Amino acid sequence: MIGIRFSLYPMRDDFVPLILAAVKDLDRLGVEVEVDDVSTCLLGEEPHLFEALRVAFGRLARSGAHVVLSATFSAGCPGEPDGDVCVPRAYNGPSGGEEGWSEEAYRLPDRVSAQFALYPLGLSGYMDAIYSEIERAKQAGVVNVVGRHFCTHLYGPGGAVFDVLRLAFTETRAHATHSVMTVTLAANSPSLTQDDQASTSAI
Amino acid sequence: MIGIRFSLYPMRDDFVPLILAAVKDLDRLGVEVEVDDVSTCLLGEEPHLFEALRVAFGRLARSGAHVVLSATFSAGCPGEPDGDVCVPRAYNGPSGGEEGWSEEAYRLPDRVSAQFALYPLGLSGYMDAIYSEIERAKQAGVVNVVGRHFCTHLYGPGGAVFDVLRLAFTETRAHATHSVMTVTLAANSPSLTQDDQASTSAI
Repeated sequence: MIGIRFSLYPMRDDFVPLILAAVKDLDRLGVEVEVDDVSTCLLGEEPHLFEALRVAFGRLARSGAHVVLSATFSAGCPGEPDGDVCVPRAYNGPSGGEEGWSEEAYRLPDRVSAQFALYPLGLSGYMDAIYSEIERAKQAGVVNVVGRHFCTHLYGPGGAVFDVLRLAFTETRAHATHSVMTVTLAANSPSLTQDDQASTSAI
Repeated sequence: MIGIRFSLYPMRDDFVPLILAAVKDLDRLGVEVEVDDVSTCLLGEEPHLFEALRVAFGRLARSGAHVVLSATFSAGCPGEPDGDVCVPRAYNGPSGGEEGWSEEAYRLPDRVSAQFALYPLGLSGYMDAIYSEIERAKQAGVVNVVGRHFCTHLYGPGGAVFDVLRLAFTETRAHATHSVMTVTLAANSPSLTQDDQASTSAI
């Protein structure tokens, strides 16, 4: 059982239509969508989950508003049913990339800022698994990686950041059956830190 | 080493002044405050951390905007320095409650909706620790507790919800030296689910 629980935060008076437009018809991509008053839960197979999240975030970011995605990725939780949720895929539009994802999944901001943390559970050597993924993100060289208290901060193009996050989660799952990753991903922010400025020239 | 990394999301065009007003002078409460372009990190001693978070969220919620707090509580991470960060407390205003917190720490919304998850790390019996805290939240009887995929949902008065979260984190730390808790806490939401309506009559 793998899934993503996420929320979208457009810092705008008209946040309701922006959110509704971002999550519209995600179930056509092959994921089960459950909505409550705080977050949206996606269940399905791994590629479809990442596709749906990228689509939702990309749509929201293209509004131009300062937007944040907060997400918890969870796989293998013993408290959940076994096995992936399989949902028929109804999407027939144009697709791209080796994944065959919808084109929208690649329409991401040129620049995002993301903080993530990995929690491989039930494992005594979990810190080594975490350090490996931070090192892998640095070695990839496509995003700027900054260490922070309790998380790791990535600055870079939206697509590259999503790719780093996806790989980190996949690799962590190879160590721990039950793995969790939390992500806070921002676009169009009026804040620009020195780290971000440094990364602009570093990439 | 214990700390909280959090972000505040007011769904409003004027989000910048609202956020700045919410986090103003938090360091006077006895916490170290580090700000970056995605989140704010508080370091200090446990009571001051919770006080500062309550103050910041309460201020933001009183704006009347639909607001969300997203927070990661972390204690005992082996990747961080040992020991709590001790910061002088400069606050001399009116205080209340047995904690001696500033009065602002108790000015919380009558009704909040919060999703939380606990991650006791490096422990094979971690699921039992999690189930214990969900059961403890139910037994407390002051908030409505709803099970969801990958998290537990609390509906109730702001103060009671913060108390449940604080106790859950404290008790989890008794099981696992390195413990993490994630929280998404919303107020003034235009959404009202059936669960919330049910809880209104159940409490």
